[in-house]
Amino acid sequence: MAENGRKILAAVDEGDESMYALTWCLKNVISENSKDTLIICYVKRPRAVYTTMDGHGAGYMFSPDLMATMERYSNDVAQCVIDKAKRACKDLNDVKLETVVELGDPRDMICEVAEKLNVDLLVMGSHGYGLIKRAFLGSVSNHCAQNAKCPVLIVKKPKSNGGNGTH
Amino acid sequence: MAENGRKILAAVDEGDESMYALTWCLKNVISENSKDTLIICYVKRPRAVYTTMDGHGAGYMFSPDLMATMERYSNDVAQCVIDKAKRACKDLNDVKLETVVELGDPRDMICEVAEKLNVDLLVMGSHGYGLIKRAFLGSVSNHCAQNAKCPVLIVKKPKSNGGNGTH
Repeated sequence: MAENGRKILAAVDEGDESMYALTWCLKNVISENSKDTLIICYVKRPRAVYTTMDGHGAGYMFSPDLMATMERYSNDVAQCVIDKAKRACKDLNDVKLETVVELGDPRDMICEVAEKLNVDLLVMGSHGYGLIKRAFLGSVSNHCAQNAKCPVLIVKKPKSNGGNGTH
Repeated sequence: MAENGRKILAAVDEGDESMYALTWCLKNVISENSKDTLIICYVKRPRAVYTTMDGHGAGYMFSPDLMATMERYSNDVAQCVIDKAKRACKDLNDVKLETVVELGDPRDMICEVAEKLNVDLLVMGSHGYGLIKRAFLGSVSNHCAQNAKCPVLIVKKPKSNGGNGTH
């Protein structure tokens, strides 16, 4: 490990696989006492459901209260994922840990963050969306592997652990 | 770097980008004094041109001499790529270096080798074929990222070095 002070961006989401990818990266890429900076990134998806409904002027499908509740829920999920990721990193000594939460399409936002922060490596799980959504939108990791300008490490959760993954 | 004795497969081809990917991996993933095994893999493509011509029984489009020459050329290229990759690895001390040359479609063969050798990580450049071929066949790295069962690290050669890459 010749490099010092690399910036590594780990994109995480609600799925087990992204946490597996983060752990794999911690074990295999980041030295415990390196001067690396690890940036944990979570992208909240906009609630397309109620934003498009709003736009048609037909009144609220969801009350402002409910929207506020959903917004709060979305923030809670983001915080929960970030906290879980941070706990996974607790053994890193000198590694600088940063977190980024963005709002938007994860495929674009992850590439944008990687570019904006000029990271040396992007690490992510191979899936991300659920099976159905992925069939329509394409895989997040696929998109990032093609569009990010930095090296991309795509980690799959092995299927051999009794099938309790998020595939 | 907690792991010992990992198996890392680096897929190389004639392009600069795969050599860049190998170098990146040497700098960022493999410790100089680790017990890792680095396996360099090159896949020769079958000469579809003369094998299909043969099949039609219309006599040889290419003489056996020419075919032997092409075969020899293909082997020379393989050897040349492997040698170049090995030279890039000369500073590794305890890392075990192995080489594999296969014949077939690189997309399938790389995944097969990764699985057969049960590697912990597959490293490759993001391109591979030329621009035209890639448009028809899809990118090798794309295919491997989706189909290999192990983590896949895809490295792009930065474009900022005067455009002398193989993009």
